[in-house]
Amino acid sequence: LRTGYPEAIFCQGKTPEQVVAIVEKMMRSNTNIMATRASQETYELVKQMVPDAVYHEAARIIVIKRKELVVRDHYIAVVSAGTADIPVAEEAAVTAETIGNRVERIYDVGVAGIHRLFARLDLIRAANVIIVVAGMEGALASVVGGLVDKPVIAVPTSVGYGTSFGGISALLTMLNSCASGVGVVNIDNGFGAGYLASNINKLGYAE
Amino acid sequence: LRTGYPEAIFCQGKTPEQVVAIVEKMMRSNTNIMATRASQETYELVKQMVPDAVYHEAARIIVIKRKELVVRDHYIAVVSAGTADIPVAEEAAVTAETIGNRVERIYDVGVAGIHRLFARLDLIRAANVIIVVAGMEGALASVVGGLVDKPVIAVPTSVGYGTSFGGISALLTMLNSCASGVGVVNIDNGFGAGYLASNINKLGYAE
Amino acid sequence: LRTGYPEAIFCQGKTPEQVVAIVEKMMRSNTNIMATRASQETYELVKQMVPDAVYHEAARIIVIKRKELVVRDHYIAVVSAGTADIPVAEEAAVTAETIGNRVERIYDVGVAGIHRLFARLDLIRAANVIIVVAGMEGALASVVGGLVDKPVIAVPTSVGYGTSFGGISALLTMLNSCASGVGVVNIDNGFGAGYLASNINKLGYAE
Amino acid sequence: LRTGYPEAIFCQGKTPEQVVAIVEKMMRSNTNIMATRASQETYELVKQMVPDAVYHEAARIIVIKRKELVVRDHYIAVVSAGTADIPVAEEAAVTAETIGNRVERIYDVGVAGIHRLFARLDLIRAANVIIVVAGMEGALASVVGGLVDKPVIAVPTSVGYGTSFGGISALLTMLNSCASGVGVVNIDNGFGAGYLASNINKLGYAE
Amino acid sequence: LRTGYPEAIFCQGKTPEQVVAIVEKMMRSNTNIMATRASQETYELVKQMVPDAVYHEAARIIVIKRKELVVRDHYIAVVSAGTADIPVAEEAAVTAETIGNRVERIYDVGVAGIHRLFARLDLIRAANVIIVVAGMEGALASVVGGLVDKPVIAVPTSVGYGTSFGGISALLTMLNSCASGVGVVNIDNGFGAGYLASNINKLGYAE
Amino acid sequence: LRTGYPEAIFCQGKTPEQVVAIVEKMMRSNTNIMATRASQETYELVKQMVPDAVYHEAARIIVIKRKELVVRDHYIAVVSAGTADIPVAEEAAVTAETIGNRVERIYDVGVAGIHRLFARLDLIRAANVIIVVAGMEGALASVVGGLVDKPVIAVPTSVGYGTSFGGISALLTMLNSCASGVGVVNIDNGFGAGYLASNINKLGYAE
Amino acid sequence: LRTGYPEAIFCQGKTPEQVVAIVEKMMRSNTNIMATRASQETYELVKQMVPDAVYHEAARIIVIKRKELVVRDHYIAVVSAGTADIPVAEEAAVTAETIGNRVERIYDVGVAGIHRLFARLDLIRAANVIIVVAGMEGALASVVGGLVDKPVIAVPTSVGYGTSFGGISALLTMLNSCASGVGVVNIDNGFGAGYLASNINKLGYAE
Amino acid sequence: LRTGYPEAIFCQGKTPEQVVAIVEKMMRSNTNIMATRASQETYELVKQMVPDAVYHEAARIIVIKRKELVVRDHYIAVVSAGTADIPVAEEAAVTAETIGNRVERIYDVGVAGIHRLFARLDLIRAANVIIVVAGMEGALASVVGGLVDKPVIAVPTSVGYGTSFGGISALLTMLNSCASGVGVVNIDNGFGAGYLASNINKLGYAE
Ligand SMILES: Nc1ncnc2c1ncn2[C@@H]1O[C@H](COP(=O)(O)O)[C@@H](O)[C@H]1O
Ligand SMILES: Nc1ncnc2c1ncn2[C@@H]1O[C@H](COP(=O)(O)O)[C@@H](O)[C@H]1O
Ligand SMILES: Nc1ncnc2c1ncn2[C@@H]1O[C@H](COP(=O)(O)O)[C@@H](O)[C@H]1O
Ligand SMILES: Nc1ncnc2c1ncn2[C@@H]1O[C@H](COP(=O)(O)O)[C@@H](O)[C@H]1O
Ligand SMILES: [Mg+2]
Ligand SMILES: [Mg+2]
Ligand SMILES: [Mg+2]
Ligand SMILES: [Mg+2]
Ligand SMILES: [Mg+2]
Ligand SMILES: [Mg+2]
Ligand SMILES: [Mg+2]
Ligand SMILES: [Mg+2]
Repeated sequence: LRTGYPEAIFCQGKTPEQVVAIVEKMMRSNTNIMATRASQETYELVKQMVPDAVYHEAARIIVIKRKELVVRDHYIAVVSAGTADIPVAEEAAVTAETIGNRVERIYDVGVAGIHRLFARLDLIRAANVIIVVAGMEGALASVVGGLVDKPVIAVPTSVGYGTSFGGISALLTMLNSCASGVGVVNIDNGFGAGYLASNINKLGYAE
Repeated sequence: LRTGYPEAIFCQGKTPEQVVAIVEKMMRSNTNIMATRASQETYELVKQMVPDAVYHEAARIIVIKRKELVVRDHYIAVVSAGTADIPVAEEAAVTAETIGNRVERIYDVGVAGIHRLFARLDLIRAANVIIVVAGMEGALASVVGGLVDKPVIAVPTSVGYGTSFGGISALLTMLNSCASGVGVVNIDNGFGAGYLASNINKLGYAE
Repeated sequence: LRTGYPEAIFCQGKTPEQVVAIVEKMMRSNTNIMATRASQETYELVKQMVPDAVYHEAARIIVIKRKELVVRDHYIAVVSAGTADIPVAEEAAVTAETIGNRVERIYDVGVAGIHRLFARLDLIRAANVIIVVAGMEGALASVVGGLVDKPVIAVPTSVGYGTSFGGISALLTMLNSCASGVGVVNIDNGFGAGYLASNINKLGYAE
Repeated sequence: LRTGYPEAIFCQGKTPEQVVAIVEKMMRSNTNIMATRASQETYELVKQMVPDAVYHEAARIIVIKRKELVVRDHYIAVVSAGTADIPVAEEAAVTAETIGNRVERIYDVGVAGIHRLFARLDLIRAANVIIVVAGMEGALASVVGGLVDKPVIAVPTSVGYGTSFGGISALLTMLNSCASGVGVVNIDNGFGAGYLASNINKLGYAE
Repeated sequence: LRTGYPEAIFCQGKTPEQVVAIVEKMMRSNTNIMATRASQETYELVKQMVPDAVYHEAARIIVIKRKELVVRDHYIAVVSAGTADIPVAEEAAVTAETIGNRVERIYDVGVAGIHRLFARLDLIRAANVIIVVAGMEGALASVVGGLVDKPVIAVPTSVGYGTSFGGISALLTMLNSCASGVGVVNIDNGFGAGYLASNINKLGYAE
Repeated sequence: LRTGYPEAIFCQGKTPEQVVAIVEKMMRSNTNIMATRASQETYELVKQMVPDAVYHEAARIIVIKRKELVVRDHYIAVVSAGTADIPVAEEAAVTAETIGNRVERIYDVGVAGIHRLFARLDLIRAANVIIVVAGMEGALASVVGGLVDKPVIAVPTSVGYGTSFGGISALLTMLNSCASGVGVVNIDNGFGAGYLASNINKLGYAE
Repeated sequence: LRTGYPEAIFCQGKTPEQVVAIVEKMMRSNTNIMATRASQETYELVKQMVPDAVYHEAARIIVIKRKELVVRDHYIAVVSAGTADIPVAEEAAVTAETIGNRVERIYDVGVAGIHRLFARLDLIRAANVIIVVAGMEGALASVVGGLVDKPVIAVPTSVGYGTSFGGISALLTMLNSCASGVGVVNIDNGFGAGYLASNINKLGYAE
Repeated sequence: LRTGYPEAIFCQGKTPEQVVAIVEKMMRSNTNIMATRASQETYELVKQMVPDAVYHEAARIIVIKRKELVVRDHYIAVVSAGTADIPVAEEAAVTAETIGNRVERIYDVGVAGIHRLFARLDLIRAANVIIVVAGMEGALASVVGGLVDKPVIAVPTSVGYGTSFGGISALLTMLNSCASGVGVVNIDNGFGAGYLASNINKLGYAE
């Protein structure tokens, strides 16, 4: 919709061949393209057709750039709890970057070692929007929400076992956050968080 | 936290006397105050102490104003589905106004009569942020999300019966929205939506 | 039961050999046969025995025709949201066709791009019955239900991730539809929807 | 939408005064009106304004008739299991009648005494559409579905205790019915079933 | 506990080697042994050690007989709905037989074709205890319960898809049965049903 | 069905007047009658019509006796955990007695003080059938099941708070019992347990 | 069990008269008594019989002291999040005190204003055991667990609305805590937490 | 945090290479290390780098010892129900030992054969803390809790099928335990139980 936004493909549940077919069709309109949840195998096949396609491995995103985007100074902070949450955090970060935002990553600052979070607090507070990515009990969103006065987008991840119920525990935590100003997206939905954060980050600036 | 933001009291589960006691303590610091989920009865008691306290009946919010806030032109649209969703929509709208935002209300535009929504689309699209309030199946959030390129905050309401499960059906709809750019808050949490929308609406403007 | 209706086999959880054995037994009574949720492998084995068996790949249905059915003009519209919903939509469409109905397919008209739905609205409105197939948040059923005055059969699909809970989110949306006149079948139950639509479509006409 | 259909008001959660106000506004367009989930108290107030308003007590529906509807011979059968299911069965029956359908009631034929069902089978089989209303385990829908070749609309009721979970047990039974050709509506949604049955019953006949 | 009862091994989650080790240890006390949920592979390994071990393939049970049991005339009826329910029905039947009961099998009598059930009703009614095995919506238990005045043990199976939720739908149906006199065991627990039925069938007879 | 069994009325959700009307109709066939979940108020009204009606207060059951039943020596043991479980235990016990069984009550033997259970073990073991009634975590059913070789009927009660979820915790415990030979009925369903126990207790004896 | 421990009565669901009867019986053995979840009304009645009975209003506990307990220096910290959590926190604190423990209260230190927690950290860290009481998203347990190396007992409360699901959200948070060393009790179970904390606090000291 | 505590790695969801990389980094600070949920394959790779690494196969834990820990006499009892629960019990036991505790194992004492539990009761009662590990219905925690006056840590396991719901049934049992003094950890969380037990066991002793 928004001018300059890339077309997005959700690869999960699609064969590499199906993805390539969609990419091919999209390329006719000379737009930027991003394919999320893409496997290495899908990337190999895409690359044969589009040699300059870039694969963000941790984020599992393929990016094809055809138009340059203006990137401004004000940034999105992506804050995440544990190392297992990084794929989702990267999905959010790379999505936001691909749409034309500056992103700062603050990873591995889960609440079990809260001093690590405080050590990075200035960088978080100076952001325009903050994405918080956490699994298990997802408490990080509440703690960050209480420390900043900027919009917070919380992404529960399916990291955990037993009663984490594939991300439900983290989701409920984030929906019930005692800190105000937190909006929540679907479990593992890094893409949606990056997209929403971009929509927010671009407000109030001519494009 | 943020300068100029009023103190908020959540009245649900508190007696009128308890609310008055909290108000009294807060008034010492000469700040703006809002009390949400307030009954008429609570308002009567507050008014005896603070004669200029205002009661927004549909929103169930008491506001006490001590400092004037700058309100700018760019606005928050509050869009709601059925008449039973209005209390939550008003909680969001009055919260946002009390914090110093211009708000436009677009009510009774549920998807069962989608022409009513299209009739108001220009006003919705020109907003800086859109709050969508809906119960039952909550489909309005997806439809609006697909029609705008601004951040959308979705508020599921507990309106419905049977399998609406007190708002869970609407909540799931909103979390799974096939339109990107939608953040979700807790069931019936109009306050949280208004607060988050305000944090977004004020970005990029000096205060 | 109904004269002319084919015998149906549900292949899921059965080995190709078991399916062949059932087909063999059924063929003795010289009836039309359809086998749903059939893999390519099952089809190969059936074909060795019944060379004129037809495989509808997208629908995963094998059809063996022994008796011709009268097909009338009034039709069933099968409307679906995303490409991932097509297998279920095809299961509904091929089922209805095999039972002797005319079917019109209106695919890829999910609510995130609602103009695509409006572009096909005349074809949908002129149908006798409408089957709506959607996953994720399933909002399409409510939107279509509000636009037509014919019976709507909604089929939630298991398409989605996280809080889509394998189709529960779409199911709840459809059960809580604010538009009246919507009946719902089990998740991914394209067969059931096609069967019910046929029972409706044939009412009021001599057979 | 459909010519001749009455306007409907859902009274649950509305005060008698609110219902009267809505009725008043609707009456200006000289249409038939039905108000569902109406208490005796609401009826008394409506009657003061509209003396010829009729109250169907068991169905909890108020009907105001301003235009005569053509009622044809082909009918809707409303089949219900226990006495506690009758209010929902009546909501369905009265809704369908008010919209202009002939209705046959077959009550108290739950599967624990299956001979009572068989005693009425001819009347059920000759219907154009069958609405099955049942709570607790809701098995009646499957049994009826297996005995007829007409469209069946199943309405789970909240009748039961413990693991009936307010109608969820009956709902699941109906969604998983081993008999094909069954569409399901929300728990206790007699209105929706009557409306959908009417949309089906009127197919194939000029209006 | 009870004299003459075989020792039972639950093989699920155990390697063939682990099962063989347990069998070896049990054989020292010269008792009858049954191993449930046993794969063909496990059987092969057991057979190398105990050549007269018998494998009931459909029931997935290995039986090793060392002592003869008295089997009386009064019998347990095992009634099941669909062909996919047969493994659980056989687990119940073979368990009961191995413990020393006469068993009559009445399979494939699901409620979608209720005449098949009525055709076998005399055999069912003459039993001492009836085990009813059904998946999907599990309505068979209610129907049988209403037709007999003997104790009924209902076994929900995990057969189904979508909202059958791996047997929960059938389980709830059985717990909410409108027919009195039905006791329920865990999903797929044919062993438990056979064991309980045996405890009932042997009451009132000297051993 | 069974000769000598009383007619049963489930009073919950019925007005005293409705109960009286049903009783009146039943009395015409000169049968024994029991009304469960009956309030004191309902009893008063019934008594005006039937002066010899007896009210079992703890069990909340009204009994009207018109025919004498033979009661034999072999008995049903009703075992319960806490004092709050007694109403359900009594519903089971009085039901069984009214149908013509000898009953022994073993109350207040919850597993938190397991010595109290062992003190009564002989009486439990000598029963023909054992009904175990427990709320909260419902562990008593497993412990009793492991100590006896007679059929056990487990009744979960809604006693507890928080994660007892109105009886679900106890229900799951009983369905997953590691002791074999346990059948489960609906939450708080003392009547069903008493009825099933009676069907078992009467096996093998001429009537 | 443990010498010196008072007898406990759980008043919820008991009439004042029933509580008094139990107290009377217990007083014969001259032991300390505590009655939890006691209303003011129950207290008035108990007081008539036992004039020196003390009522802890916030904790809703009646205490009757007959034997003096040794209270040592090492203490239990009771930490709670919001003002609505105080009744449960007090139930824990008063329980632990009544059993003979020193207790330090650290209330109103929820994570939305984390500086208040840090201001009291020394007192928390010096405790022998820490009880953390929190509703809504319950994040406080994880944060405290990460800051101390003493056993933590987490008590979820039913405080919250919507997706807090009566305490389930907080419960899941606590069970999934990314900080090690946290044990969880039932929702609102302040008594159980105080009891367990006492069992821990008394370890390693002669009694 | 606590001096002498080993660093812990949670291997589930990490490749052997990732685990080795983390171990390598940790070894620089010359600390004891334990890696839980480690596969044989991960162990082989770790061993190549650290030849004296020890693998506790049943517990799935790799231990690397660099510093000797003082182990005192007072011990932790690890009590478990069935053989399938042993991996979790061992995870708890080896964790506690690695942190420097004496552990006594009491395995295979599930409540279906309660005499086996009583035979070991003295050893259990003399412990400082008791860890109870059980799947299926998890009743063992309540029974043990009623027999001891020491802190009990309950670990639900995912052992079971059907309504055991991957450990939820056992979890609910433990949270609702009618015996006081029981704290619960996440499903299968042997590590957390061992860690918490160690924090308790070391209280009151100088280190
Ligand atoms: N309607 C509402 N819904 C959710 N949170 C609210 C609402 N109103 C106020 N709050 C939050 O509750 C806090 C006050 O809670 P309390 O101290 O219990 O009155 C405020 O700081 C807000 O963050
Ligand atoms: N008993 C009922 N159950 C479900 N929906 C109803 C019922 N009665 C009326 N409705 C629907 O509710 C709409 C009116 O809702 P409202 O505007 O809140 O009165 C009608 O157009 C119907 O579609
Ligand atoms: N199919 C089955 N389902 C449920 N329980 C079973 C089954 N087979 C055996 N059992 C029970 O499992 C116990 C043996 O379990 P195990 O020691 O794990 O082999 C037996 O004593 C039976 O009570
Ligand atoms: N507030 C409470 N929450 C949970 N359990 C409690 C509570 N108060 C007392 N109890 C337990 O309940 C038992 C008494 O229950 P009752 O016999 O029903 O009064 C005591 O022995 C305690 O173990
Ligand atoms: Mg904030
Ligand atoms: Mg958008
Ligand atoms: Mg319509
Ligand atoms: Mg049919
Ligand atoms: Mg019966
Ligand atoms: Mg037993
Ligand atoms: Mg810690
Ligand atoms: Mg204890």
